[in-house]
Amino acid sequence: MGEYAFDADTRVVASETSGASGASGADFAAELTGRWDGTNGAVNGGYMLAVCARALGLVVPFPDPIVISGFFLRPGMAGPAVVRTSLARSGRTTAFGEAVLAQGEKEIVRATAAFAALGSAGPAFVEGAPPRLPAPEDCVGVPVGSFGLATIAGRVEFRSASLPGWFRGEPTGRPSSEFWMRFADGRDADVYSLPLLVDSTAPSVLELGLTSTTIQLTVHLRAHPAPGWLACRAAARFVSGGYHEEDFEVWDSAGTLVAQSRQLAMVLPLLPA
Amino acid sequence: MGEYAFDADTRVVASETSGASGASGADFAAELTGRWDGTNGAVNGGYMLAVCARALGLVVPFPDPIVISGFFLRPGMAGPAVVRTSLARSGRTTAFGEAVLAQGEKEIVRATAAFAALGSAGPAFVEGAPPRLPAPEDCVGVPVGSFGLATIAGRVEFRSASLPGWFRGEPTGRPSSEFWMRFADGRDADVYSLPLLVDSTAPSVLELGLTSTTIQLTVHLRAHPAPGWLACRAAARFVSGGYHEEDFEVWDSAGTLVAQSRQLAMVLPLLPA
Repeated sequence: MGEYAFDADTRVVASETSGASGASGADFAAELTGRWDGTNGAVNGGYMLAVCARALGLVVPFPDPIVISGFFLRPGMAGPAVVRTSLARSGRTTAFGEAVLAQGEKEIVRATAAFAALGSAGPAFVEGAPPRLPAPEDCVGVPVGSFGLATIAGRVEFRSASLPGWFRGEPTGRPSSEFWMRFADGRDADVYSLPLLVDSTAPSVLELGLTSTTIQLTVHLRAHPAPGWLACRAAARFVSGGYHEEDFEVWDSAGTLVAQSRQLAMVLPLLPA
Repeated sequence: MGEYAFDADTRVVASETSGASGASGADFAAELTGRWDGTNGAVNGGYMLAVCARALGLVVPFPDPIVISGFFLRPGMAGPAVVRTSLARSGRTTAFGEAVLAQGEKEIVRATAAFAALGSAGPAFVEGAPPRLPAPEDCVGVPVGSFGLATIAGRVEFRSASLPGWFRGEPTGRPSSEFWMRFADGRDADVYSLPLLVDSTAPSVLELGLTSTTIQLTVHLRAHPAPGWLACRAAARFVSGGYHEEDFEVWDSAGTLVAQSRQLAMVLPLLPA
């Protein structure tokens, strides 16, 4: 049985020079593959954020990222990368670290994260519910990669009750959607892969005849996901001044909210196919 | 006419050693005052984030923070601080920088931000509206600092249609609220003070009989606010596993969404007064 694509493509290897700077942390080598490209042919931002999370996980003394913030300085391209990590603080319950993903001499992603041990103890309050969707087998596949160069469409599978308006050439004017999501090769999601998954879909603003590029993405990891399909909700509520936010909720097969993310993205015109 | 409290208390002064490291950026001296403390007597996190934003504004070549992420590693206390900034990238439309606020040898806040020139051009879509509130003069003042050591209650004024349940000793079980907000000394809000203002209210989870401490806060600055009262909406939708998110919207007097923020906070028991 082969290794899952996510695990193979986010592998990081400690560099020989690691720790030479004297800082608390380590440097890692990574190989970004061309299997997670967005429609513009650049490496998906969430994929790079997951590579950063995986490197940070090797230098912090807690098992779970609970919040990770990534700033996207430049497009990443398939090829070698380095991830320079530093441990900023390790406290009793929470540790904080930073990772800089660079290609050549250029910084591509600046990621900062807090780690802890996720549990289920304590008071609970939930305002909201998972999206109500037909069973995955009664849904249609959403062809996220049906335009452009989005190889990521071969890695992550999406299903929804009907085909999106933008795909039918009839943007609905409503930049929100609900759908099922999972890795195409059967790998179950975990807190390390959710930062990729929340950024893997087509932007909601396609329903406004627009597209966008991510400037910053914050992901909250709220629980360890149960195996199986993830029920998701994506929406942009505010498009103005050349920017929009995009919110994303991920609910697992047990009906638990497992991740919540928000990004700020720059609006781009949608070029004719 | 005296200087406004916000401007006086977020002043940063370039250090003589600035730039000695050779990195692109500068070090600044700041003096955190005891005028923005939360109920626990520690310096408010949004106040420290605003100090970081102000320092970053001096090293980036664009006028407006558009997104800032702050991780809160330790409580800050009134007294001297240093803010070490670095410019990570300056592109054609966007610049990225980082600020580390430290007291003594201890890192307190790690802030990362993107800057640009906010405009109002481009396509617009708004799903949502400002909260519908009685006029400020028909509202009651919300005594945010009515328990604990919250000196910030003297700096920021809040008004809502009725007193919150938590204040009356009857938590409503609904951790959401709508209210007016402004600086008590009449200073109008701008994109540099909004990172403070979005973190200046009592936590929504007080309505669940809980309180919390912020781990990470992301603020999107979406427009330059018009002068006057700000109409705000705060809510926690997901409390679980010892954490909760808190979402915050700020609408200006012209009915424009000017800021949107989300934080991840750790739930704490509410100690009896």
